[in-house]
Amino acid sequence: MRFGSAVLIFVWLMVGPWLSDARAAADREALLTEPSVYGTFAVFALDEGWAKQDPAMRIVRLTSLKGVVEQHREHVTIDLYLLRGLSDHADLLFRIHAAELRQTQEFLLDLKSSQLGKHLKTVGIMHGLTKKPNYVPGFSDQMKTDLKTLSEPGQNPYAIVIPIKKSAEWWGLDQEKRAAMMQEHTAATLPYLKTVKRKLYHASGLDDLDFITYFETSKLEDFHRLVLSLEQVQEFQYTRRFGNPTILGTVKSVDEIVELLAQ
Amino acid sequence: MRFGSAVLIFVWLMVGPWLSDARAAADREALLTEPSVYGTFAVFALDEGWAKQDPAMRIVRLTSLKGVVEQHREHVTIDLYLLRGLSDHADLLFRIHAAELRQTQEFLLDLKSSQLGKHLKTVGIMHGLTKKPNYVPGFSDQMKTDLKTLSEPGQNPYAIVIPIKKSAEWWGLDQEKRAAMMQEHTAATLPYLKTVKRKLYHASGLDDLDFITYFETSKLEDFHRLVLSLEQVQEFQYTRRFGNPTILGTVKSVDEIVELLAQ
Amino acid sequence: MRFGSAVLIFVWLMVGPWLSDARAAADREALLTEPSVYGTFAVFALDEGWAKQDPAMRIVRLTSLKGVVEQHREHVTIDLYLLRGLSDHADLLFRIHAAELRQTQEFLLDLKSSQLGKHLKTVGIMHGLTKKPNYVPGFSDQMKTDLKTLSEPGQNPYAIVIPIKKSAEWWGLDQEKRAAMMQEHTAATLPYLKTVKRKLYHASGLDDLDFITYFETSKLEDFHRLVLSLEQVQEFQYTRRFGNPTILGTVKSVDEIVELLAQ
Amino acid sequence: MRFGSAVLIFVWLMVGPWLSDARAAADREALLTEPSVYGTFAVFALDEGWAKQDPAMRIVRLTSLKGVVEQHREHVTIDLYLLRGLSDHADLLFRIHAAELRQTQEFLLDLKSSQLGKHLKTVGIMHGLTKKPNYVPGFSDQMKTDLKTLSEPGQNPYAIVIPIKKSAEWWGLDQEKRAAMMQEHTAATLPYLKTVKRKLYHASGLDDLDFITYFETSKLEDFHRLVLSLEQVQEFQYTRRFGNPTILGTVKSVDEIVELLAQ
Amino acid sequence: MRFGSAVLIFVWLMVGPWLSDARAAADREALLTEPSVYGTFAVFALDEGWAKQDPAMRIVRLTSLKGVVEQHREHVTIDLYLLRGLSDHADLLFRIHAAELRQTQEFLLDLKSSQLGKHLKTVGIMHGLTKKPNYVPGFSDQMKTDLKTLSEPGQNPYAIVIPIKKSAEWWGLDQEKRAAMMQEHTAATLPYLKTVKRKLYHASGLDDLDFITYFETSKLEDFHRLVLSLEQVQEFQYTRRFGNPTILGTVKSVDEIVELLAQ
Repeated sequence: MRFGSAVLIFVWLMVGPWLSDARAAADREALLTEPSVYGTFAVFALDEGWAKQDPAMRIVRLTSLKGVVEQHREHVTIDLYLLRGLSDHADLLFRIHAAELRQTQEFLLDLKSSQLGKHLKTVGIMHGLTKKPNYVPGFSDQMKTDLKTLSEPGQNPYAIVIPIKKSAEWWGLDQEKRAAMMQEHTAATLPYLKTVKRKLYHASGLDDLDFITYFETSKLEDFHRLVLSLEQVQEFQYTRRFGNPTILGTVKSVDEIVELLAQ
Repeated sequence: MRFGSAVLIFVWLMVGPWLSDARAAADREALLTEPSVYGTFAVFALDEGWAKQDPAMRIVRLTSLKGVVEQHREHVTIDLYLLRGLSDHADLLFRIHAAELRQTQEFLLDLKSSQLGKHLKTVGIMHGLTKKPNYVPGFSDQMKTDLKTLSEPGQNPYAIVIPIKKSAEWWGLDQEKRAAMMQEHTAATLPYLKTVKRKLYHASGLDDLDFITYFETSKLEDFHRLVLSLEQVQEFQYTRRFGNPTILGTVKSVDEIVELLAQ
Repeated sequence: MRFGSAVLIFVWLMVGPWLSDARAAADREALLTEPSVYGTFAVFALDEGWAKQDPAMRIVRLTSLKGVVEQHREHVTIDLYLLRGLSDHADLLFRIHAAELRQTQEFLLDLKSSQLGKHLKTVGIMHGLTKKPNYVPGFSDQMKTDLKTLSEPGQNPYAIVIPIKKSAEWWGLDQEKRAAMMQEHTAATLPYLKTVKRKLYHASGLDDLDFITYFETSKLEDFHRLVLSLEQVQEFQYTRRFGNPTILGTVKSVDEIVELLAQ
Repeated sequence: MRFGSAVLIFVWLMVGPWLSDARAAADREALLTEPSVYGTFAVFALDEGWAKQDPAMRIVRLTSLKGVVEQHREHVTIDLYLLRGLSDHADLLFRIHAAELRQTQEFLLDLKSSQLGKHLKTVGIMHGLTKKPNYVPGFSDQMKTDLKTLSEPGQNPYAIVIPIKKSAEWWGLDQEKRAAMMQEHTAATLPYLKTVKRKLYHASGLDDLDFITYFETSKLEDFHRLVLSLEQVQEFQYTRRFGNPTILGTVKSVDEIVELLAQ
Repeated sequence: MRFGSAVLIFVWLMVGPWLSDARAAADREALLTEPSVYGTFAVFALDEGWAKQDPAMRIVRLTSLKGVVEQHREHVTIDLYLLRGLSDHADLLFRIHAAELRQTQEFLLDLKSSQLGKHLKTVGIMHGLTKKPNYVPGFSDQMKTDLKTLSEPGQNPYAIVIPIKKSAEWWGLDQEKRAAMMQEHTAATLPYLKTVKRKLYHASGLDDLDFITYFETSKLEDFHRLVLSLEQVQEFQYTRRFGNPTILGTVKSVDEIVELLAQ
């Protein structure tokens, strides 16, 4: 039921090689690891007209996605996730990192104006900012070492995005109390450092959120246990919104998205 | 007003025998009884175009449902429920069990791409995970025996799905207090073990829920009394969301769904 | 501006006599007065296509309503209410009583499949169960006698449906405290027994509600005063949801609905 | 950019003179000042088809509005407000006073069936009941005199409707406490009696509200200061809903509405 | 991928010079700095038909925007922001200042009736009123001087609008307590006076809000830090709604909007 490779080779030739530029890859590394980078999570649903397009037309429209991504890759990094079948009312998630939100806006404007964009309904947009990890003074050296542990290499097919809003009471606590609770929170995550990759974005003022938490894992059951642990630390009492929505999808390349949505 | 058997025999011949494979049935047994299995509840509504299709076209589209279900039955189990007439804004519920959520996503992607899928609007998707029953230490032997009682065999035409979110306060209680309250909760369910079949899914992190509770019964009044009893135990004070929505439907085979929606 | 009687006589002849069967009327009496009967409130809105239909086509479609109601009247009782002009986003309310919800589902499936049903959007469905009146032990004999007072005979053109959800705290109270508060609640209703007819449905588990309260009156101002009185008793402090929506309409026969919507 | 007077004279001749009947004006006076009158606030939005109608067709449809209003003016009073440009998701507000809500329903049914009605989406309907002003015993004679002060004659172009729901705690207070707080509330309104005209409707049971408050003013800044004052009295602590939505519009005659929407 | 300058020169010649009138610019200065001015924030989304228009037709429609803005600039000031790509469900924000809300309504009516307006769906409208800065008596002279500091000249490409609703408890506090907390609030903003420009609108009664806060900055990270600081002062405990939605966009001229949306 998949489209033949002949069609995909045709698409490849039309758009040109993907991810072949070493310099761009270097920028990507910086945007994904440095502080003061803006991370945007843009969730889209395919409109009702999409299912009625014939497959050849869908290929043409999906090809425009490759073009737009290619055109903006010098300024922003773009990661793609398939939400369809796992999340409500949404089909695609774009995670975009940029030094300035203007660059993200320019990418999303071009995406919306593209042949595919005419079929994309914007379900939600969230913005956050990366910061240097804030190791609480009370953290032991062992804990700091553990936190630098890299998660296991290899494919982490599942990605989960959980938006978080703390209560006003949380922000009213003095700094030491919050730090002590964050230490307990962090300790609860240690058993899952190897199997669940995490990234934190600070969102206050950029959105109706305080944090956006991003996870990748190949073991969803471990991720479930991690969340259960986090629900049981004291800091969780000060969380007003956790999810709503929880966004669950699978990591995909642009080519995989083109192939899957062409069906 | 039902479609003649001639049409259904035609459908049968086109799609091939259903549930005839003993191996697949064994897998189904495992997925439905073992821990660490993912259970997905996917709720759909037929779009406005469906009512305008002529009956012959509807049969063709419904036939695609049988094909997609057949194609995925080696990897996932699929149960079907008719919600139309009993639940708001929804017509069909699929309950899918799989060892990996990727397999569930693949099934739902193919369903959405099918001839019927073009008419299905996704109303909601919830995921949970099965675990070994957690018999609280304080449970008497009698209680443990009672809990192993099988519900009466035979048809349980009604199915109810109730999503549950506990309060942050609940997760902040120490383990013994929660266990004591769960024992009281479980005791309240004993009078209904024979007439109301239950299954529990753990959902924290996979969704905006903590649990998904699934019930089957032929005696809805008993189910109502069970819920009344559960509202009166102390643990209920720590429930932030119970239902919203409560999903009520009738258990149907794929053939019954095809026949009923062909009208 | 009303349609001529010639058209309505034509409709009458096509569908056959209405409410002429004494046995069916007896079943209706039982369903409307006995305990363990399921009451369903199904609220519909006419879709945007309805206003664009020409009047002759509307008559044809409305005639199908009479057919479906007639076809199911041996198993379910059906009462009809016009909400248009009095309630938001809704045009029609069906109140259906049945010994089993499956029978209600069958009626609503046939209604949705009918010529009129293609134009009906389901706005909401609520289910409840009737129970024997639970006279609190502390009620005086006078109070019990008063509660058996029949409301004044004759037409009660207005019907109001108020869904109710109690707080978790309410269910956590011991039985005597709840009984004492229900006695105060009931006493507050006594001045309105003659002008406001009431019926109670228990809904826990069948819906996101605990109760559905149904009222009929020809004096809306009396009903307003009754609600004001009920807001002032202690039991009201334990009500988490009261209305949302409050459904207000006028009692109509099927013939009146056909005539009014044909316009 | 306004339509020429020739077109409007044509409309005038077609529908007949407006507000020329002295008897009807007297009924209007009674409905607007007496207790036990039902006040309905019906909010409508023009559908997406409206903007695509050509101007001549729009005039024809708007003319039907004049016809329906004329036809019902013996039984109900109808006031019209333009919300477009000032309130979200709404274009028109009808305020209807009637001795019986059935008469209001009949008007709104005819409005929905009219040529204009096919383009009106019902955004919200709220009902309330007028009562005699309830002068609290503690009011001084000066205060009672002040409250009878007529607001300044002349045009009050702005109208604001604020729906109000009190908390359960409010209704649980004893009558004297509520009266004392209402006296403080009323005192806060005295500085604005001349520039802000007010009217109160009691809504409990007729809707999901306890009160509907209606204001007219030519000085919106005074109205803003009045609301600020009311937020600072103790009674405001017992308000669960205030607005949501706040409805803001300008008072218009039917002829002005016809002219403005014809564009 | 941008439209050629030839097309834009054509648009310029058709509509006439923009912002060439010194008197109008003076009015603009007054409306933007004086108290008792009404500020309206009107948020629009382009409808689904927009993407299907061919580019030439889009230019024609966008040209009408220039005409409507020009026509009303004697009475209202109009600022434009591009939300697409940064905010959910919205594409354009108009900020309109006027001495009377009637003038704003007249502009928005003409906008909705224009060729572009037929494609604009109103997502939200909020109104507020400017007042003289209320320097709390306790403010030090240094603080007062700091507050008069102009933010750095030059382009502030980002604009953020945050609607605010205070709790009833806030309004129930005595005036001195509120003043003391506002002093703490204001002190928290001092470090950001140079990089984040702010403007406050009072909204009680005009909307379901108490305040609308407007920010402009070229350093979004500074704005984020400002919000973090404001979350930590005591006054924040009395905020019931902060954002929901937070509106984030980029400042654009009418010409830039025409160019960007023509794509």
